[in-house]
Amino acid sequence: MSDALKKSLANVRIVLCEPHHAGNIGAAARAMKTMGLSRLALVTPRDFPSDEASRRASRATDILDAAIVCETLSDALSGAAFALACSARTRELAVPQTDARHAAARLIEIAHTQPVALVFGNETYGLTTGHVNLCQLLATIPANPDYASLNLAAAVQVFAYELRQAAMSGAPESKPRKLAGHDELEGFYAHLESALAETGYLNPEQPKKLMQRLRRLYARAELEREEVNILRGIIRTLRQPKKS
Amino acid sequence: MSDALKKSLANVRIVLCEPHHAGNIGAAARAMKTMGLSRLALVTPRDFPSDEASRRASRATDILDAAIVCETLSDALSGAAFALACSARTRELAVPQTDARHAAARLIEIAHTQPVALVFGNETYGLTTGHVNLCQLLATIPANPDYASLNLAAAVQVFAYELRQAAMSGAPESKPRKLAGHDELEGFYAHLESALAETGYLNPEQPKKLMQRLRRLYARAELEREEVNILRGIIRTLRQPKKS
Repeated sequence: MSDALKKSLANVRIVLCEPHHAGNIGAAARAMKTMGLSRLALVTPRDFPSDEASRRASRATDILDAAIVCETLSDALSGAAFALACSARTRELAVPQTDARHAAARLIEIAHTQPVALVFGNETYGLTTGHVNLCQLLATIPANPDYASLNLAAAVQVFAYELRQAAMSGAPESKPRKLAGHDELEGFYAHLESALAETGYLNPEQPKKLMQRLRRLYARAELEREEVNILRGIIRTLRQPKKS
Repeated sequence: MSDALKKSLANVRIVLCEPHHAGNIGAAARAMKTMGLSRLALVTPRDFPSDEASRRASRATDILDAAIVCETLSDALSGAAFALACSARTRELAVPQTDARHAAARLIEIAHTQPVALVFGNETYGLTTGHVNLCQLLATIPANPDYASLNLAAAVQVFAYELRQAAMSGAPESKPRKLAGHDELEGFYAHLESALAETGYLNPEQPKKLMQRLRRLYARAELEREEVNILRGIIRTLRQPKKS
């Protein structure tokens, strides 16, 4: 993990307003830690600390131990340069609105240098208008209009995931493969074609059509050098006389 | 929700292999429904149906009611044109690998016209190599390297979210290819393996390693049904006695 990535994510505070179920607090802490977030603030939680929260946090209890408990959302936002309200529903009269992905990108932009907050509401009634008005942006997770009710910890997971994605500057793909060169590929196709001609499998009327098909198939596979050797070994071995 | 979006998501099957906690099955069903997914398959669940699963599913119990229970992953994949293995860790010798976002885009491309599957492993030990080998692509959720342990239902939520995002933005593939189904692919691998065993080309000490290599190669090619027929024709013809 790069230092810049760590630093941006360390500037993000997750705020849960009036969470009802201790299990959700623990699951939210776990979701945060999987994405490299560590700062948790709880506004008047009904049941915290609790064994259920610790159990559901799995190995993320360090985040629960460091969590701060506040009397008001305003207290929880103290020092934050920007606050994002996360909501299942859009609102008539409120702050600007966007989706989770765009909101995460904006938040990380700011978090490179300044503390920011993501605010989640209660499991049953969400965020009040008063809560939302303390934030600078409202974001929703695009969901099934017939059932948009994400579990609280699941919503934290999606936002935390989007934050990490935004903070990662184009992570490199898995390690580069050693691809077969042009001559190796052509050697393979020639070998295959001659073996197929020998058995009469190639249609003498349209010898090119089958080979074109096979070329297309193996082109999609982007063959590695070693794989070409394996395939040629297979052609040779299959042409051997059957063992009795 | 547009018809095309609905249709793509209806073609997606979520497969949970050997889930241990009933609560996770319920939470996964809820995560699915929030993103418009509906098909759930369970491979030898420890505890299902159960009250705990229904409780955690909230108002997504219709998905639990319609879930199918299978004896093997192969059964659960029957009829799927493409299977994606979701894993917390990358692997040395396996199918091609990518991240959740790219995998979701690819899966939805295919799901416009054909059934696909997303496969999740057990809470403790994840997917076995045998499981992964039955899939065409392996995807990981980019996570904190010091703690990458997403809860099972949280991982389902992230993938379901990415699928919906991909389905909302992606146009259907210009000319969809008719991919070989799970059963056709397994028939091809079995045919190839027996031919190679017959000639002695397979190392009897490590019979699995070569087949794994070949599976990876052909998984990248995303074989069409007709291509599988051609390859099996080639195996048969190469085994014929040489013409004099």
